[in-house]
Amino acid sequence: MNRRLDEQMQFLIEIDAPKHVLRRTRLLNGSRYENDAEHAWHLAMMAMVLHEYSNKPVELSKVVKMVLIHDLVEINAGDTFLYDENSASKEEAETKAAARVFGLLPEDQRREFIDLWEEFESKETPEARFAAALDRLEPLIQNAHTGGHAWIKYGITKDQVINKNRPPLIGGSEELWAYAEKMIEDSAGKGYFPHA
Amino acid sequence: MNRRLDEQMQFLIEIDAPKHVLRRTRLLNGSRYENDAEHAWHLAMMAMVLHEYSNKPVELSKVVKMVLIHDLVEINAGDTFLYDENSASKEEAETKAAARVFGLLPEDQRREFIDLWEEFESKETPEARFAAALDRLEPLIQNAHTGGHAWIKYGITKDQVINKNRPPLIGGSEELWAYAEKMIEDSAGKGYFPHA
Repeated sequence: MNRRLDEQMQFLIEIDAPKHVLRRTRLLNGSRYENDAEHAWHLAMMAMVLHEYSNKPVELSKVVKMVLIHDLVEINAGDTFLYDENSASKEEAETKAAARVFGLLPEDQRREFIDLWEEFESKETPEARFAAALDRLEPLIQNAHTGGHAWIKYGITKDQVINKNRPPLIGGSEELWAYAEKMIEDSAGKGYFPHA
Repeated sequence: MNRRLDEQMQFLIEIDAPKHVLRRTRLLNGSRYENDAEHAWHLAMMAMVLHEYSNKPVELSKVVKMVLIHDLVEINAGDTFLYDENSASKEEAETKAAARVFGLLPEDQRREFIDLWEEFESKETPEARFAAALDRLEPLIQNAHTGGHAWIKYGITKDQVINKNRPPLIGGSEELWAYAEKMIEDSAGKGYFPHA
């Protein structure tokens, strides 16, 4: 058999792992936690449906690819919870994971995927900023639909939610931030944040 | 708020459902069944990595979109097992589900998504044929990694697997069929098919 195809298949087999990496937010019916593969799929669908709201025009296919791969580095490093402090060791673990996971691919594709992941992480291009906005919007929707599950469980206040989500959301889409802000206010009205 | 955005959000909330639609094949570590959202994500990753093997050149972004949405009609109709007889009632249920689910979107996007889904279903364009090949390849890989779980559980013989998978796989990618054929032979050697 073809060595290139064997390498590609090894990568495709390895990336079954995100289906086992659980996030902190639950599915909209509250039945269980979402995993990284489902999350990436939902972000790709959001990109397809919502790209017209990006502050700047984006190449949709690049946003889709970016969100599909953005959490592959969590295979080894585990899910990063937005409200945890970012540690240098976590970043190092993700960089190592990127080298290992994408390193399974043939050189040209390894380069392509690492470039896409680094572009996502750097949050500088319109595509990366819009992808980051979607990555923040999905858990807000999930919390708003599950009685603020993660907010209450981890003691995250409304101010923390606004402070963490406003900059990336507004940086990618002012309209989606306006939608999110209303959702956060509605959630507060329903008692979905922990009591002070 | 914006009525268009409200409609788009209703669609994005509705499509949490595929995370609850279980398939007949298990994750590669055998721990549980795969759901439709994870499956769609994995096919999109396969498209990104394997599109060079399409018999005819494809527009990758269209293949990716197609596989991301291809099973949304199962929200109402349930998963279709490849080896079951296709019933007219099943097809009717899927057509109804497509009208209902995609009908949540604004008219322009409803049209775009239904067109994509119909193109996938008709298996005529290079993109649809390649997408269909990937849709067949993934469960073969899953069965080959889980001791032939679905083949044994449902009494599917090697001949049935070849007869059902060869035409769509070879129609999308001769090279991926060659890979799949070897995988099926290896599986037979390991006793992953039911005894006659």
